[in-house]
Amino acid sequence: MPAVVLGLEHHLFEEALEIVKEDSGYRNDVEMTEADWRGIVTQYKGIVEVELGRAFPQDVSEQLWDAIRAVFDSWDSDRAKVYRRLNDIPGDWGTAVNVQAMVFGNMGVTSATGVAFTRDPATGEKAYYGEWLVNAQGEDVVAGIRTPQYLTLAARKRAGAKPLSMEEAMPASYGELAAVFELLEKHYSDMQDIEFTVERGKLWMLQTRSGKRTAKAALKMAVDMVEEGLIDETTAIRRVDPMALDQLLHPTLDPKAPRDFLGRGLPASPGAASGTIVLDADTAEKRAELGEAVILVRVETSPEDIHGMHAAKGILTARGGMTSHAAVVARGMGRPCVSGASGLSIDMKTRTLRMGTRELKEGDLITLDGATGEIMAGMVSTVQPELAGDFATLMEWADRYRCMKVRANAETPADCRMAREFGAEGIGLCRTEHMFFEAGRISSVRQMILAQDEAGRRATLEKLLPEQRADFAAIFTVMAGLPVTIRLLDPPLHEFLPNRDAEFAALSDTIGIGVDTLKRRADELHEMNPMLGHRGCRLGITYPEIYEMQARAIFEAACDVAEESGDAPVPEVMIPLVATKKELAILKKLVDETAAKVFAEKCRTLDYLVGTMIELPRAALMAGEIAEEAKFFSFGTNDLTQTTLGVSRDDAARFLNPYVEKGIFLRDPFVSLDIEGVGQLVELAVQRGRATRADIKLGICGEHGGDPASITFCEKIGLDYVSPSPFRVPIARLAAAQAALEK
Amino acid sequence: MPAVVLGLEHHLFEEALEIVKEDSGYRNDVEMTEADWRGIVTQYKGIVEVELGRAFPQDVSEQLWDAIRAVFDSWDSDRAKVYRRLNDIPGDWGTAVNVQAMVFGNMGVTSATGVAFTRDPATGEKAYYGEWLVNAQGEDVVAGIRTPQYLTLAARKRAGAKPLSMEEAMPASYGELAAVFELLEKHYSDMQDIEFTVERGKLWMLQTRSGKRTAKAALKMAVDMVEEGLIDETTAIRRVDPMALDQLLHPTLDPKAPRDFLGRGLPASPGAASGTIVLDADTAEKRAELGEAVILVRVETSPEDIHGMHAAKGILTARGGMTSHAAVVARGMGRPCVSGASGLSIDMKTRTLRMGTRELKEGDLITLDGATGEIMAGMVSTVQPELAGDFATLMEWADRYRCMKVRANAETPADCRMAREFGAEGIGLCRTEHMFFEAGRISSVRQMILAQDEAGRRATLEKLLPEQRADFAAIFTVMAGLPVTIRLLDPPLHEFLPNRDAEFAALSDTIGIGVDTLKRRADELHEMNPMLGHRGCRLGITYPEIYEMQARAIFEAACDVAEESGDAPVPEVMIPLVATKKELAILKKLVDETAAKVFAEKCRTLDYLVGTMIELPRAALMAGEIAEEAKFFSFGTNDLTQTTLGVSRDDAARFLNPYVEKGIFLRDPFVSLDIEGVGQLVELAVQRGRATRADIKLGICGEHGGDPASITFCEKIGLDYVSPSPFRVPIARLAAAQAALEK
Repeated sequence: MPAVVLGLEHHLFEEALEIVKEDSGYRNDVEMTEADWRGIVTQYKGIVEVELGRAFPQDVSEQLWDAIRAVFDSWDSDRAKVYRRLNDIPGDWGTAVNVQAMVFGNMGVTSATGVAFTRDPATGEKAYYGEWLVNAQGEDVVAGIRTPQYLTLAARKRAGAKPLSMEEAMPASYGELAAVFELLEKHYSDMQDIEFTVERGKLWMLQTRSGKRTAKAALKMAVDMVEEGLIDETTAIRRVDPMALDQLLHPTLDPKAPRDFLGRGLPASPGAASGTIVLDADTAEKRAELGEAVILVRVETSPEDIHGMHAAKGILTARGGMTSHAAVVARGMGRPCVSGASGLSIDMKTRTLRMGTRELKEGDLITLDGATGEIMAGMVSTVQPELAGDFATLMEWADRYRCMKVRANAETPADCRMAREFGAEGIGLCRTEHMFFEAGRISSVRQMILAQDEAGRRATLEKLLPEQRADFAAIFTVMAGLPVTIRLLDPPLHEFLPNRDAEFAALSDTIGIGVDTLKRRADELHEMNPMLGHRGCRLGITYPEIYEMQARAIFEAACDVAEESGDAPVPEVMIPLVATKKELAILKKLVDETAAKVFAEKCRTLDYLVGTMIELPRAALMAGEIAEEAKFFSFGTNDLTQTTLGVSRDDAARFLNPYVEKGIFLRDPFVSLDIEGVGQLVELAVQRGRATRADIKLGICGEHGGDPASITFCEKIGLDYVSPSPFRVPIARLAAAQAALEK
Repeated sequence: MPAVVLGLEHHLFEEALEIVKEDSGYRNDVEMTEADWRGIVTQYKGIVEVELGRAFPQDVSEQLWDAIRAVFDSWDSDRAKVYRRLNDIPGDWGTAVNVQAMVFGNMGVTSATGVAFTRDPATGEKAYYGEWLVNAQGEDVVAGIRTPQYLTLAARKRAGAKPLSMEEAMPASYGELAAVFELLEKHYSDMQDIEFTVERGKLWMLQTRSGKRTAKAALKMAVDMVEEGLIDETTAIRRVDPMALDQLLHPTLDPKAPRDFLGRGLPASPGAASGTIVLDADTAEKRAELGEAVILVRVETSPEDIHGMHAAKGILTARGGMTSHAAVVARGMGRPCVSGASGLSIDMKTRTLRMGTRELKEGDLITLDGATGEIMAGMVSTVQPELAGDFATLMEWADRYRCMKVRANAETPADCRMAREFGAEGIGLCRTEHMFFEAGRISSVRQMILAQDEAGRRATLEKLLPEQRADFAAIFTVMAGLPVTIRLLDPPLHEFLPNRDAEFAALSDTIGIGVDTLKRRADELHEMNPMLGHRGCRLGITYPEIYEMQARAIFEAACDVAEESGDAPVPEVMIPLVATKKELAILKKLVDETAAKVFAEKCRTLDYLVGTMIELPRAALMAGEIAEEAKFFSFGTNDLTQTTLGVSRDDAARFLNPYVEKGIFLRDPFVSLDIEGVGQLVELAVQRGRATRADIKLGICGEHGGDPASITFCEKIGLDYVSPSPFRVPIARLAAAQAALEK
């Protein structure tokens, strides 16, 4: 009470007690006499008076009210705030206080106290699990001052511990307790986290609640309990937190392996990986090709690093938050990533990096834990995930109950394959620009951008056509029988241009245009606000030849795959960043005309859809009109969040944390959809789009497509599918099932 | 017909005719004999066959249909497109074709043709005005091949011309014509633009329509016609195009003065000005302080040039469109501006500029015409605008009928004074950041931004406080009795930082921090998308001390002015870029607490309002909730357009023109509000805001507040006021009256 209620430091009182015990030669509190305690109480009162400048309150009501107030105040403690942020608990929920009579576990050797779980919260095993202490209060068990004893004989034996278990020391109370465990678990149909006290041989239950558990335990218990007949499948589905699955889908560090801790960053993408340090994307790719496991370490990543990120086993950056480029791309690829490791500095000249007092060089071994943000020197062994068994069972149940389809965002055959393995029912977003960054073709892309006129652009696009066609053919082959939504080129062209002198020089050599001219052209393409600039369908309107080439590559690839496999894919061509019906009408015409030409050349026709992303507020508002031209809408909620809130994801780090801390945003709106704001626009667009075209296909392809709260919203407003990154597909399958059950 | 219908060049036929006339020694077409004409017809047929590869169609129906088709096709000619763009005529209106029998004005000397206006379309004078030709067709009059003659005796005499006027040559027909003029003007209650033909002495009217007129003429006619009893005041108000007033409010070039034409740019801000060329803002300010009239010439302008733009009589830029920084700021200040003069290059080393083959140096005289975009060497005399007389009369009538108030956007006492002179009923937007750029204080601002912590920022803010207080006191004094809306700091802080080496060095000297440190800090503040970055109320949330200083300056100034003048101003404190109710709640509390402190110190209280800009889609969507904290909403439609459409005004030039040309945008959405898209959000916010707080004050302070079409929309949805730049106040007064009458 002095610590919590009066705000005095715990050690002040502990010291006084220790001195008395030492002077008297006691080892345990139980050896203290009444006189000793009376002395201690007097001392404690003195300490309070000295520290606080006023006497310890003697009025019982005053004490009670102080205690009540302290509980309420604890809601706003720093520790509570951090806890809430980590666990997504909104700050405006508040807390409550129960006032009731107390029982005492410290009334001698026939008294005891303990905490217990009805099953093992770490593994899910069906066995009582807990700790207890003779002659103690609950605080003694959890505070770690005395070492608690095992609850069951089995656990004590397994650990090889000496102090008696409760099962042995107090068999009667233990038997009674076990009966209560069974009763409570059956009553709540869930594993219980229980606090109990034995006061002079009589068992009292202090508290029971559904217990926290690891992802692994949650999964096992849910499946076990269905088999035991304790719960049904729908309860099992509801019982597992979809986000917790993320831990199960990636390799994790072997908990028994020794670790050489270097520092910490943000847990940006789950999973663990070890490898040699490489400091740039090209080196990453080269060394990975030789079979080496590499970890890409950068100050921050940009689209030009994609090939290196793909080649690496893990990514570590010094800057950037949970939604930085590195974090988003790594999650999409399923690579572990630790971002924003502020203690990390990189010296590119000496090719070394420093973390605190430690210096490492390129080629040294390093290990990342993307689930915790920990960085370790050397190799730490990892444990591979188990995707069969309980996991597969739960997924099967989930698929039985969900209404929405789950697709995935992917653009390489490898990612598409992984998406299928995780249960994706199609590709919801294939970002064609990622293909443009590939080492072999970035020069052609740059040459196209820097061309003086349409003829020049067309000449280089001719070179890119067979490569894009091959990209799409590979994807169609992997995704046979499933829909694939391909988004035409989206980012502003200057994203593809070099930004380092060496790259300009290399490009100049390759394409034979002077460095000065290249730099001038790059300057001309520079934009103040690229997010709101010359990108998306605006590129298609001003340079129709680019979209024409992409459409041709899609239809030629689709025809070829249909020819070879006999299984015709159904491409869904998606026009990005549409704000008006007319933009879509112009570009749909271009796509349709290109399709007609290809079909005539190939002497066959194929089904395909043309649709658009809804990622601008205006597009959502005008969805009724736009649906006249669109066979499908895919909600690009990343950009829709940026424009609706007026927040650039790249720049938000400076104020997003204070915003979450001050409760302005309950959660990062790029992680979980801002339902009350952005959600209004999505819902409006759904209503207006369906009013125009009843069978319009509706999906979401923003990062939110893998966030359970956002998925619940998507189900509520009636979307047809969600499309997250491949590693989030199982999460989405479970969350979609939960949302359907909730509805 | 061959030119229009068959697309053959006119000169082919003219040459053949000229040869026949020359060979025969004729000077006029009328001297041609029937045989000559038959020969010409044969020749013409030959030309058509050679040029077209097929004979001239002899079937009358075919000729007619070709002609009809040609008229419809003309709608899509380049010339028509340019015309429509310049005159804001939507491309989807289409055109019509009338087919009717013809009369001939070229049947000898008793035949004639002419065009006439019932009043002088240039000056508005009540006198017939027109041209005619004996023995000619309408095309001859307008094509400029023969020189037409004056219609009236008075006009011929005034011009000292010899060929007889129609009044003299055909008195009977002229008398009949004059009677028709009177009849038509009375019938249409407007000045008519008439085409007529006399066929063998009989007068035929070909066409009549309300005539185009200059702004000056429109004004004079509207006022005259009310005095004549021809129209009433409301018709007079409707009759004048508000945009045309813009021409009347600025000095114009004396039409008689000789001009040395250098080149042309975009007519970015109306008015004409002469002065000496200066190439940077500091020089502009220095030379202007010595009483010199200067023209600021820059590649493009940035917020750092504001003081130079203010000091200059006119602004010329090589880059940037009609909505570039230079254009927007110049219009706001009422300075003539020619932007995007692509032929202009500036050499800062030699301090010279080049336009085409001409080279000028700093200090040379130059003249700009912001209404046409023309640039001239040397001085061209100007004519001052006449704001009394007809102008004042029309404004008085407009004020009688309009419902919305008209405020102005201004932040200097001079601009506020001008706004009052133009009839502004308050300040709708005082952008406090403009005050931060002033030469005397930018160092303090920079020091504040670069401070390591809150204490450092507070120390520099202390220095800025008295200056801001003086700013506000001056404005409150000028605007005595009228409301003043002050927006707290809005732009991202890095906009205030130096970006040239010399500036960094100077700043380093002033504040004693190394250049490297300054540059590093500036780098840290750099943003990918500053428009969506750390700005607006996000600054107030993260650095509350800045808004606190500004609020203190406002309330101290208001108290001081109230004390001195006895006339207490009512400050309206406006929080920018709000997306959530909570942001506004936090900052409103800060403002209220600061007000309470100042009132306690000054021993007096004042009325004031706290409100917000609605400039993000989310703010519009959440207006119902936000109105719980806001006493007023001011629609910042510039930013609302940028976010709703996902278009950065700074970067839009690359695609906005093609977008307008292809009909994707009917008009530049930054010039005229996108009513169907952005308008939905504005309307929604009005409804939701009023539902929460019935008496919420609603206004618009974007550039659109000076655009008649947008003003009509504001009236329709029931805003309380519009607030354009001072020079647009008369336009807004007239447009608001027209909108009220329309309603």
